[in-house]
Amino acid sequence: MTTLGAEMTMVGHGEIDIQFAYRTSLTQQHGFVHAGAITSILDSACGYAALSVAPEGWDVLSVEFKVNLLSPAVGEKFVARARVKRAGRTITVCGADAFAIKDGEEKLIASMLATIMNVKPTQ
Amino acid sequence: MTTLGAEMTMVGHGEIDIQFAYRTSLTQQHGFVHAGAITSILDSACGYAALSVAPEGWDVLSVEFKVNLLSPAVGEKFVARARVKRAGRTITVCGADAFAIKDGEEKLIASMLATIMNVKPTQ
Amino acid sequence: MTTLGAEMTMVGHGEIDIQFAYRTSLTQQHGFVHAGAITSILDSACGYAALSVAPEGWDVLSVEFKVNLLSPAVGEKFVARARVKRAGRTITVCGADAFAIKDGEEKLIASMLATIMNVKPTQ
Amino acid sequence: MTTLGAEMTMVGHGEIDIQFAYRTSLTQQHGFVHAGAITSILDSACGYAALSVAPEGWDVLSVEFKVNLLSPAVGEKFVARARVKRAGRTITVCGADAFAIKDGEEKLIASMLATIMNVKPTQ
Repeated sequence: MTTLGAEMTMVGHGEIDIQFAYRTSLTQQHGFVHAGAITSILDSACGYAALSVAPEGWDVLSVEFKVNLLSPAVGEKFVARARVKRAGRTITVCGADAFAIKDGEEKLIASMLATIMNVKPTQ
Repeated sequence: MTTLGAEMTMVGHGEIDIQFAYRTSLTQQHGFVHAGAITSILDSACGYAALSVAPEGWDVLSVEFKVNLLSPAVGEKFVARARVKRAGRTITVCGADAFAIKDGEEKLIASMLATIMNVKPTQ
Repeated sequence: MTTLGAEMTMVGHGEIDIQFAYRTSLTQQHGFVHAGAITSILDSACGYAALSVAPEGWDVLSVEFKVNLLSPAVGEKFVARARVKRAGRTITVCGADAFAIKDGEEKLIASMLATIMNVKPTQ
Repeated sequence: MTTLGAEMTMVGHGEIDIQFAYRTSLTQQHGFVHAGAITSILDSACGYAALSVAPEGWDVLSVEFKVNLLSPAVGEKFVARARVKRAGRTITVCGADAFAIKDGEEKLIASMLATIMNVKPTQ
């Protein structure tokens, strides 16, 4: 998240928004923000959303995720919104959508469904 | 859908609900409705949602889907709700959630993210 | 698996093959075997492969899977081959391919990547 | 791939290997290479594998991918091996595995299943 210059703009119980601004260092050859950056921000948002419902003092680990890349990432700002779908003792499942914000308008650019595991910090 | 005795209970532009009732023939050894039946209903709901936004006269084909099984499928009725996330010329992406209805209460039991392709009917 | 008339044709440590024969009851409107049947057999193969490496006496549970449907399921017989990619204490990850066998020739028709959880039988 | 300092070490018809060396700039807080870097290299390998079987002059686009993170990315070198599972006119499906190489030994650390679309370069 440091590399992306990202920051959390909403933190709720099982709900996290992460936002970052456009930077040329994040673009690929066509001037769009790289899918890798969008995927990372979605993965981070899911991880933090899972962490917000994990047992006190535990850590979380991404087991797997699937991402659909829906539209080129064109905009001044990008936001990932993750919501916990189910919080279990061992496994938490999150859905997350990424939006590009351009001229004040939001456009859905990617969608993730992720499986996260609670891990004891001493492991 | 015939095998499941399922029926569409909501048909909108890019939005489909499919419902079916509990039957012992659909259960596995623990008395829960089989994950295969839940997956089929989610896949069907995504397919019909994609079809509702496809070009006139075209057909659709499931390219791939991912499903997270969140809770045992226990209930009198089951409903899958699919929503189109992006409708492109070739590819449509749908998200869908399956709920078990028991004593009038809904519980999220599975979640799908699916990629569907528009195909010309003559192909 | 009973509904499909399927049987295990290979059982190894982390390796399972499941086979079933064509039946009209498994076909959809175009005469192909339904994607739901193919998905179920892939899911079962992954589950049994995970079980073959699970701790003694433990059970397994599908957490999630993704399936790519590659070609119409046309053939006399169908086989799903699952291989464990990683067996952890809690999580096992399996890959599986489904093949249609027609006139003695195999064709890849679907591919799955699945996450399975070990569960204590008393839970 | 430039950011990662990655290079193709094998290029075949539907088969690509991409390799990169450990760098501290790619690590997260625990000293492992970041999952985002591993995911990017898998995604790139799948893209190039799909491109190697695409119609002459066409480009490719990642539609979606799923990745299972199997083990922490610890090693001197990392290699992603992508293989085309099915090359269609519109859609190509690839599987890819990522390995960490440490003291000359390879360990599987991540696995991807990806859907790629052929696109005309003029689009």
